[in-house]
Amino acid sequence: MAWTVRSTQDVTYRVQQSESVFDPANDALASVAGLGRGSRRLVIVDRNVDRLYGEAIRAYFAAWTDTRPTFLVLEPDEAAKTSDALLLITRAAVRAGINRRSDPIVAIGGGVVTDLAGLAASLYRRGTPFVRIPTTLIGLVDASVGAKTAINFDGHKNRLGTYFPAAHTLLDRTLLTTLPARHIRNGLAEIIKMAVMKDAALFSLVEDEADALVTRRFDTPHAPEIIERSVTGMLEELEPNLWEHELKRLVDFGHTFSPVIEMHAAPELLHGEAVSIDMAFSCALAHENGLLGHEETLRVLRLLHRTGLPIRHAVCDLDLLRRGLDDATGHRDGHQHVPLPTGIGEATFVEDITTEDLKRAMAFLDAYAPATGGRTPALERDASAALETVAP
Amino acid sequence: MAWTVRSTQDVTYRVQQSESVFDPANDALASVAGLGRGSRRLVIVDRNVDRLYGEAIRAYFAAWTDTRPTFLVLEPDEAAKTSDALLLITRAAVRAGINRRSDPIVAIGGGVVTDLAGLAASLYRRGTPFVRIPTTLIGLVDASVGAKTAINFDGHKNRLGTYFPAAHTLLDRTLLTTLPARHIRNGLAEIIKMAVMKDAALFSLVEDEADALVTRRFDTPHAPEIIERSVTGMLEELEPNLWEHELKRLVDFGHTFSPVIEMHAAPELLHGEAVSIDMAFSCALAHENGLLGHEETLRVLRLLHRTGLPIRHAVCDLDLLRRGLDDATGHRDGHQHVPLPTGIGEATFVEDITTEDLKRAMAFLDAYAPATGGRTPALERDASAALETVAP
Ligand SMILES: NC(=O)c1ccc[n+]([C@@H]2O[C@H](COP(=O)([O-])OP(=O)(O)OC[C@H]3O[C@@H](n4cnc5c(N)ncnc54)[C@H](O)[C@@H]3O)[C@@H](O)[C@H]2O)c1
Ligand SMILES: NC(=O)c1ccc[n+]([C@@H]2O[C@H](COP(=O)([O-])OP(=O)(O)OC[C@H]3O[C@@H](n4cnc5c(N)ncnc54)[C@H](O)[C@@H]3O)[C@@H](O)[C@H]2O)c1
Repeated sequence: MAWTVRSTQDVTYRVQQSESVFDPANDALASVAGLGRGSRRLVIVDRNVDRLYGEAIRAYFAAWTDTRPTFLVLEPDEAAKTSDALLLITRAAVRAGINRRSDPIVAIGGGVVTDLAGLAASLYRRGTPFVRIPTTLIGLVDASVGAKTAINFDGHKNRLGTYFPAAHTLLDRTLLTTLPARHIRNGLAEIIKMAVMKDAALFSLVEDEADALVTRRFDTPHAPEIIERSVTGMLEELEPNLWEHELKRLVDFGHTFSPVIEMHAAPELLHGEAVSIDMAFSCALAHENGLLGHEETLRVLRLLHRTGLPIRHAVCDLDLLRRGLDDATGHRDGHQHVPLPTGIGEATFVEDITTEDLKRAMAFLDAYAPATGGRTPALERDASAALETVAP
Repeated sequence: MAWTVRSTQDVTYRVQQSESVFDPANDALASVAGLGRGSRRLVIVDRNVDRLYGEAIRAYFAAWTDTRPTFLVLEPDEAAKTSDALLLITRAAVRAGINRRSDPIVAIGGGVVTDLAGLAASLYRRGTPFVRIPTTLIGLVDASVGAKTAINFDGHKNRLGTYFPAAHTLLDRTLLTTLPARHIRNGLAEIIKMAVMKDAALFSLVEDEADALVTRRFDTPHAPEIIERSVTGMLEELEPNLWEHELKRLVDFGHTFSPVIEMHAAPELLHGEAVSIDMAFSCALAHENGLLGHEETLRVLRLLHRTGLPIRHAVCDLDLLRRGLDDATGHRDGHQHVPLPTGIGEATFVEDITTEDLKRAMAFLDAYAPATGGRTPALERDASAALETVAP
């Protein structure tokens, strides 16, 4: 006797923009977290965010519920994204006695904290709703809009995790005013990724304000539309593929070579910086394979450069790039599935990249943005200033 | 701006009966685990099962693949169902370098081991297929046919877990020949649960062989049909409700009062023993509320008694039963949703049980199976022998 069991899980979640979410006059958080009399809440906060907004957060809860929430302040460091931190959260959930149906966990912080809290929420009683308030740009346009949760494990990034979206996510751009510039750039890399793959208008908006977005921390005229378009584009890709069964993904642009680059340059490069280097290389690859025009290729390189993102790194030799391609192919079930731009806002998937192709792409980049062995990303940026002058 | 994301996950898994699964002539395991040249496999085995079948298991793999699997032998104890054991498995998965798409994890053991391995599989790279071979009766008819995985945490049973069914489960009744009698009875409680709720024919089959099923460890004429009907009945209930969104569940029969009974008698009672005590009490409750006839009530009590399951326990005072009902109501979103039999193989949900009802049910049981303060389940069984004689 044999049985085949078939079941379908419907998942629905909400992402919404809201400004000044910790202003007691703004009811968005109170509403999505269901705050009221006697609410028992566990609130997980990034330590830096707690330093900056802790008082405001506590005052907000005090204004909306008569019950003191349990606050758990976490180290926001990548090195603290561990099973220990995970179990710290689940233990706090047990001690706070939260109910899996009525007491959502609230997570406030960057990707490290929301990934951790999300995994804890997915495990606690096999799934307890949670509410996310991302406080970094990576969080606003990437980490906090999808379903992935994770911890690093045994030397591997995000090796353990689940697919478990927050029931509600509030995107508040005003929280970025305190974010270090480097982390603004880090998030810009993911925005540029979406723009190059599928949204030419978004690309132009970012081009218009490349410097101001960083210096003014997204307090610019275009910023709301930039975030909106990025999130819309990202969700269009995620919604039909929340569990990542489809391995041909536009969102993998910049994520073919970046894992090995990030790993080998560690801890020097942030994720978005490695993605930027990958995107620059991928555009060169698209150019050399006749997919992307010369002017458009330079347009992408120039934008990355203007936002202050690195486009080369000394670790990127042919060997490493080949290894990156092979690893990615392994993760994509034996297919390269490399998304490459065919224009600004247009893309295709390539399946037959050769080592020769990689070599030519490197040579192209060498001409426009010379590799500079051993330099830091900051110096790389200077070196890539060559772009402005060398470009025909 | 606000986005509502809607996505649907289709889950399919297979459960099949197979005998002598470690006989190299049986290709079932090789087939579902995809064994072949160069297969990298992580095999998680219960320590007692390893002692009894370890050699056969290793010989089986040697016959079907040229690559030595990584064996991880786990303590099968409830006390070892911890986050430490979980991380031991995930670490072994990292070290074995298994691929989330092609290298399913194989779990062989009782519910402790399959729950642990299932949770590890669901977390490793956000979900790696696994194959289950349950070796206990609870495993064959319950723990290994659904989607729940778990570990105990911070003093609470199954507090952390996921819904993640094994891609393939092989049910091999011949593995029960080495199982201690008490664990056969433990599984029989769950079989009787399904029978009382929805399968009168199953009830009769178990009645026919109540003693032999235990003494001959399911090596009886009816055994294959008993397992088949139990699994079919269980899967009918689970398939439309794999993520337990519906809280009115027939499979909760025997699971309203048993959690507090199990906890308060700990570590004396096995889960199925507490379920048996709950079922006996629930039948008395159904009788006292005019739902279940006198003869049918005694038929259930007699069957539990004949298989050697306890039907009373000294910890069951009115207070504890009331607490059990209240806790269950909490877990069922404020509704009692208590499944009670209205006949053998028929049931209804009751929403308005009062303390008075609990008292009357206790009195009914007192008449037929006197409570015996402080006795062990074994003695309880003797006391309940009264059933045979007192019953009209
Ligand atoms: N789940 C996903 O889909 C997904 C997607 C992308 C990245 N991630 C994960 O996210 C993590 C990276 O996230 P991140 O870039 O947000 O890094 P992060 O969480 O480490 O935060 C970066 C730094 O900014 C600080 N910070 C956060 N908000 C601040 C604010 N408003 N003002 C001042 N400082 C603030 C933090 O304390 C930290 O020091 C990685 O672990 C990555 O794996 C997950
Ligand atoms: N996931 C679910 O839906 C689900 C359902 C029911 C129970 N469970 C869980 O299952 C666990 C109980 O499972 P269990 O009753 O199988 O207990 P168990 O896993 O503790 O096994 C019972 C004992 O039998 C031994 N054993 C196993 N197979 C044997 C064999 N063939 N021969 C001899 N000895 C053998 C084990 O080593 C152990 O000592 C609990 O942790 C419970 O929470 C899960």
